[in-house]
Amino acid sequence: MSGKRKLGVGLIGTGFMGKAHALGFTTAARVFDLPFELDLVSVADVSEESAEGARQRLGFRKATADWRDLLTDTDIDIIDITTPNLLHKEMALAAIAHGKHVYCEKPLAPTVADCAEMVAAADKAGIVTQVGFNYLKNPLIFLAKDIIESGEIGEIRSMRGIHAEDFMADANVPWGWRLDPRSGGGALADIGSHIIGSMRHLVGPIRSVLAETIIQIAQRPVSRGAAETRTVEVDDITRAFVRFENGATGSFEASWIATGRKMQHDFEIYGSKGSIVFTQERLNEIKVYYAGDDIRSRGFRTIWAGPEHPPYGAFCVAPGHQIGFNDLKAIEVHEFLDAIARGGKPSTDFREGYEVQKVLSATYQSARTNEWVDIG
Amino acid sequence: MSGKRKLGVGLIGTGFMGKAHALGFTTAARVFDLPFELDLVSVADVSEESAEGARQRLGFRKATADWRDLLTDTDIDIIDITTPNLLHKEMALAAIAHGKHVYCEKPLAPTVADCAEMVAAADKAGIVTQVGFNYLKNPLIFLAKDIIESGEIGEIRSMRGIHAEDFMADANVPWGWRLDPRSGGGALADIGSHIIGSMRHLVGPIRSVLAETIIQIAQRPVSRGAAETRTVEVDDITRAFVRFENGATGSFEASWIATGRKMQHDFEIYGSKGSIVFTQERLNEIKVYYAGDDIRSRGFRTIWAGPEHPPYGAFCVAPGHQIGFNDLKAIEVHEFLDAIARGGKPSTDFREGYEVQKVLSATYQSARTNEWVDIG
Amino acid sequence: MSGKRKLGVGLIGTGFMGKAHALGFTTAARVFDLPFELDLVSVADVSEESAEGARQRLGFRKATADWRDLLTDTDIDIIDITTPNLLHKEMALAAIAHGKHVYCEKPLAPTVADCAEMVAAADKAGIVTQVGFNYLKNPLIFLAKDIIESGEIGEIRSMRGIHAEDFMADANVPWGWRLDPRSGGGALADIGSHIIGSMRHLVGPIRSVLAETIIQIAQRPVSRGAAETRTVEVDDITRAFVRFENGATGSFEASWIATGRKMQHDFEIYGSKGSIVFTQERLNEIKVYYAGDDIRSRGFRTIWAGPEHPPYGAFCVAPGHQIGFNDLKAIEVHEFLDAIARGGKPSTDFREGYEVQKVLSATYQSARTNEWVDIG
Amino acid sequence: MSGKRKLGVGLIGTGFMGKAHALGFTTAARVFDLPFELDLVSVADVSEESAEGARQRLGFRKATADWRDLLTDTDIDIIDITTPNLLHKEMALAAIAHGKHVYCEKPLAPTVADCAEMVAAADKAGIVTQVGFNYLKNPLIFLAKDIIESGEIGEIRSMRGIHAEDFMADANVPWGWRLDPRSGGGALADIGSHIIGSMRHLVGPIRSVLAETIIQIAQRPVSRGAAETRTVEVDDITRAFVRFENGATGSFEASWIATGRKMQHDFEIYGSKGSIVFTQERLNEIKVYYAGDDIRSRGFRTIWAGPEHPPYGAFCVAPGHQIGFNDLKAIEVHEFLDAIARGGKPSTDFREGYEVQKVLSATYQSARTNEWVDIG
Repeated sequence: MSGKRKLGVGLIGTGFMGKAHALGFTTAARVFDLPFELDLVSVADVSEESAEGARQRLGFRKATADWRDLLTDTDIDIIDITTPNLLHKEMALAAIAHGKHVYCEKPLAPTVADCAEMVAAADKAGIVTQVGFNYLKNPLIFLAKDIIESGEIGEIRSMRGIHAEDFMADANVPWGWRLDPRSGGGALADIGSHIIGSMRHLVGPIRSVLAETIIQIAQRPVSRGAAETRTVEVDDITRAFVRFENGATGSFEASWIATGRKMQHDFEIYGSKGSIVFTQERLNEIKVYYAGDDIRSRGFRTIWAGPEHPPYGAFCVAPGHQIGFNDLKAIEVHEFLDAIARGGKPSTDFREGYEVQKVLSATYQSARTNEWVDIG
Repeated sequence: MSGKRKLGVGLIGTGFMGKAHALGFTTAARVFDLPFELDLVSVADVSEESAEGARQRLGFRKATADWRDLLTDTDIDIIDITTPNLLHKEMALAAIAHGKHVYCEKPLAPTVADCAEMVAAADKAGIVTQVGFNYLKNPLIFLAKDIIESGEIGEIRSMRGIHAEDFMADANVPWGWRLDPRSGGGALADIGSHIIGSMRHLVGPIRSVLAETIIQIAQRPVSRGAAETRTVEVDDITRAFVRFENGATGSFEASWIATGRKMQHDFEIYGSKGSIVFTQERLNEIKVYYAGDDIRSRGFRTIWAGPEHPPYGAFCVAPGHQIGFNDLKAIEVHEFLDAIARGGKPSTDFREGYEVQKVLSATYQSARTNEWVDIG
Repeated sequence: MSGKRKLGVGLIGTGFMGKAHALGFTTAARVFDLPFELDLVSVADVSEESAEGARQRLGFRKATADWRDLLTDTDIDIIDITTPNLLHKEMALAAIAHGKHVYCEKPLAPTVADCAEMVAAADKAGIVTQVGFNYLKNPLIFLAKDIIESGEIGEIRSMRGIHAEDFMADANVPWGWRLDPRSGGGALADIGSHIIGSMRHLVGPIRSVLAETIIQIAQRPVSRGAAETRTVEVDDITRAFVRFENGATGSFEASWIATGRKMQHDFEIYGSKGSIVFTQERLNEIKVYYAGDDIRSRGFRTIWAGPEHPPYGAFCVAPGHQIGFNDLKAIEVHEFLDAIARGGKPSTDFREGYEVQKVLSATYQSARTNEWVDIG
Repeated sequence: MSGKRKLGVGLIGTGFMGKAHALGFTTAARVFDLPFELDLVSVADVSEESAEGARQRLGFRKATADWRDLLTDTDIDIIDITTPNLLHKEMALAAIAHGKHVYCEKPLAPTVADCAEMVAAADKAGIVTQVGFNYLKNPLIFLAKDIIESGEIGEIRSMRGIHAEDFMADANVPWGWRLDPRSGGGALADIGSHIIGSMRHLVGPIRSVLAETIIQIAQRPVSRGAAETRTVEVDDITRAFVRFENGATGSFEASWIATGRKMQHDFEIYGSKGSIVFTQERLNEIKVYYAGDDIRSRGFRTIWAGPEHPPYGAFCVAPGHQIGFNDLKAIEVHEFLDAIARGGKPSTDFREGYEVQKVLSATYQSARTNEWVDIG
């Protein structure tokens, strides 16, 4: 017996992200001194069979084909939602209504109104929420934030952010859910929300945007290899100029047709006394420049993640060994549980998901009008 | 005796760029089999003394404090102008009027109208012109252009370009000619023209832009260390969305306050079958990705400049030894002389300088109106 | 019920490596379709208290302060040894005597004779063994091996290997177990065995070595901050020339005083038709050069780990997301269990541990005599 | 008239290195404030025709097919020797006998005895000598030396050096002068002398070596495409352990069959308080690590060459623009002329060439005996 209070988890969805979340819980329990003893209670999926398979593989106690079973399961304290975006709202609201804490994969929901409703419900119920902006849960991103907040690189003047991949670069990739406008958009909605999240996290709230969207591949086969095509209505590329509330400016770009790019979540932040350069392609490194260093030996420092960058040390006692993508999920889980224990709010709670969605929505609006749009 | 016809050079201006041009001529004569025997006839500067110093140092035969002396010197075939931008037009028109070929440092002139006048005069006189877009005279940029034109990376879909340095990042850098609006603008006019040149060179003519300009440091000391300040009216940062005539899209950014950046002339070009990534910070390397490479061993190839990338071999018989910034000027000179011999046009003649200026001007116009502006 | 046979695990040792192994088992069970249902039966540590703490944290059913309890536990099929090197032999022999499969952290044992005894016992008992050479369990190292074996880079001519860190670079780091000659040596024994493992794995058996060892910091404080010092008798740096049995040659170096290096497990392999360059500092990238690529666009390809490099896809469906150090342990576990199921041998079984120890021992011997030493 | 004394140059040899030296003189005269007015008097080559062609191209006044003509030319103060190694000694001794200063391409001569004779003659005559170790004439190598000598990275403990290229990697490259044992050896003599030079320059005199040489490609065609082959007697790869006189240790490797490598002149220097990492593949960058930097933002600093690293500023007023291989020759020329003016000695005079040759010779001797060989 650990003497710690048990905290029960119910997981909805068992795909790529479902597995990543389950791993996040099991790894977090082993590397962190969590405030609770975790109980992986039940997993829900669309069929009995897939739920049961996931139960065994992911180490849960129960399985169900009806996600609503989780709502009434008194062993469950947290509902973890990793289903397609269009289902998030219904599930989250139901979970909140049953007093569960909610952990939801990003994006929170396809529209700002949906997000607002979810935030309001969560606030009213007083439960703790978390959205999966896992790239922010990197020890080196914590370092970047710390360097910025410490003033070491001076007043932040500008930030350029990119999130580019190439999984849609081949014009033969067929029409699918990613291209369904009801999902909330294309490249920006699907992957660009990450870079919006990074910009808000590191430089602060965004006041307004001026944007354009590009549909580069106007027709896609209706299915793999089909001659019949369907018109694409969502963005392959979105670009935006950004004004932050603190006076800094910047830009971001999202693309899912950047041939050769697999995880170009890049940013460059320029301050009056230094700068920070990062790419998610090398998530265990960050480059920092201090204008105050002696001029003859001044240059971007390539910093490797190590125990001096918490919580890296939870994963490995030695620097340079490197954490991976799935480990970021464990850090996210830790932050969530910590907030539950403290009665606090994770930095990426539903409200943050809502704020990101507002920027995303304003970006699409600006692209339609070619005018600066204020974030409401 | 070489049996080659002599070609006489008259240089106006002996600062950083004057020296670079002189070096360009002397190096070109030694590494290339030029179509002419070069005669460094005369150098003009603002005083007898500085002109004479430059004459000795740079290896010219004559020196003068009156640049007009060069116009009537019958030994001189080429007038090379490396003076401040505001003087280019008068000097170039005078040289053209005297039937000289003209080599002019970029930017051609501060306004589109000035540039147009210069192009018209040159065309009418039938002389050969060249503008100093030296970053384009890189063997690896020739390779990039060749790869694009060969279709190896498919249809070009997008290009992102940056030109960022940090020489104005310190708010204590005083007011000076770079900040004088009569120079044609700030960061974009001063260094951003390079990235516009690269975008046109590699992807093609630009149809329209949507831009914003940022004045980040609103006041500068009137002189180094002065308490009195003067209001800055030109851009520290300019960002633009770009539509190319061939249907590709892109963006560019110019900044002279990018702390830590010394020569971030970077671009990324994405095609349907591959991509190209380059930074001028490492001018002897370029990265190329071929989507058609075997999937398991596919990745960006880091290509080092070598004799297989003409005219690298003129400088060094072995790959990997590296050429420098000044060598790019020698290649520029070679291209210019070659055009004179052939009766052709260099790729970066006055017309190209004029086209770049049109994009630059449209960018500033768009930044004032926040509307898409067509390049006339 | 999965219908799979259960396989029980008993873990001895709960430090850094004990935790990494436990994580390896739990992650492997979640990302791979393992041939068994894993049962984390029992964990042993030096005290009841630490064992019980580890039990709860790492998710085992039982805890004990006597590792011998695991030998007689009929639920246990695998004994996993993560204790200090000097204890490996006794524990492994006992486990083998009880018919358990044995998973042992590297190095297998401090002497060749000890290793030989362990191999003989394992062979006689017919159980499956595994030694923790986790850097070899990288999808990109599998790729490197595949590229070499396919002949794509021709006949392998040479390999240069480094394993350098800096945890002993500060002369104030006090005397400790790493410096105890009974551990089998210094930098080479402690971390250099990894690079010997990589060289054998990729190029093949080593025939002979010529080596030198350096004690750079001859005295260390007896404890942190102590004025009293103790003489260091083991190597800070070891360097060796290597002759492989297949005719290739090479060198390796191990150092634990390489200031600034955290995980410089680097190698370069040169073949007659290409080459491979890798650093563990960026474990998700590998560089491959094909001499047969078109000369003008030839260069080292930077390949990012992706689903096309099994078993990366078990961790993440998308390329470029990156796996971490702990994930390598999960791959190691998978290989071990797979060998148990198939009745085969993992590539890094006790015999491989013994072979590495023979090279290590020959290296130290050569350093004493300054003569080429054949690997027996 | 500059008022400076004229200094006449006579060049022997007009191949790759002859051209590079001529460029070195003309560039040096334009970028530096030299202590002399340079007079490119005469160039000698094997035929009238080639000498005359070089004269015109390289800007000399006279041409001759008899190098001895330069000895008696009273306008000539410096004899510059860029002929094949076997001719260096005869030419240098003749030049010295005529009281000329001598600039000689590396290696000084194929044997230690020859080098000694040349040093003795130069010393006796009191003339100034220079050997072409141009990689050392890099502003960033000056920085590295300065950082080491300042003590900033503490006591130097070790250095690893590589010089690898691949111009002999193809087994079909035919037998030629590089493979002639009379040239003094193979890869080590041809290109490895550069890394010996770098090690001596940065860490200091070498006391002893233990080495091995490898002939990987035992037979080469007698000419391109020939079926007939000739036995190779010189090294494709040489590796050595090194003991410096100051107590540091290290290793070097020379290879001309390192497939994919064009200019891998790499080194890593580890001190007690920091380290330096460099590759000639990126000659305008150097990486420096300071153990004393704040732990959380500590990392290798990538330093770009700039005006703060003299004499970079002579070539370009702005940082990051990059100098090239040929510019290093201009710096070498500057150092030589400066020594002549001051009556001093360049750091890479004949004596240094002799010292490098002693290390080279001892390395070959050690490879034959497999014993440590002291540098005499």
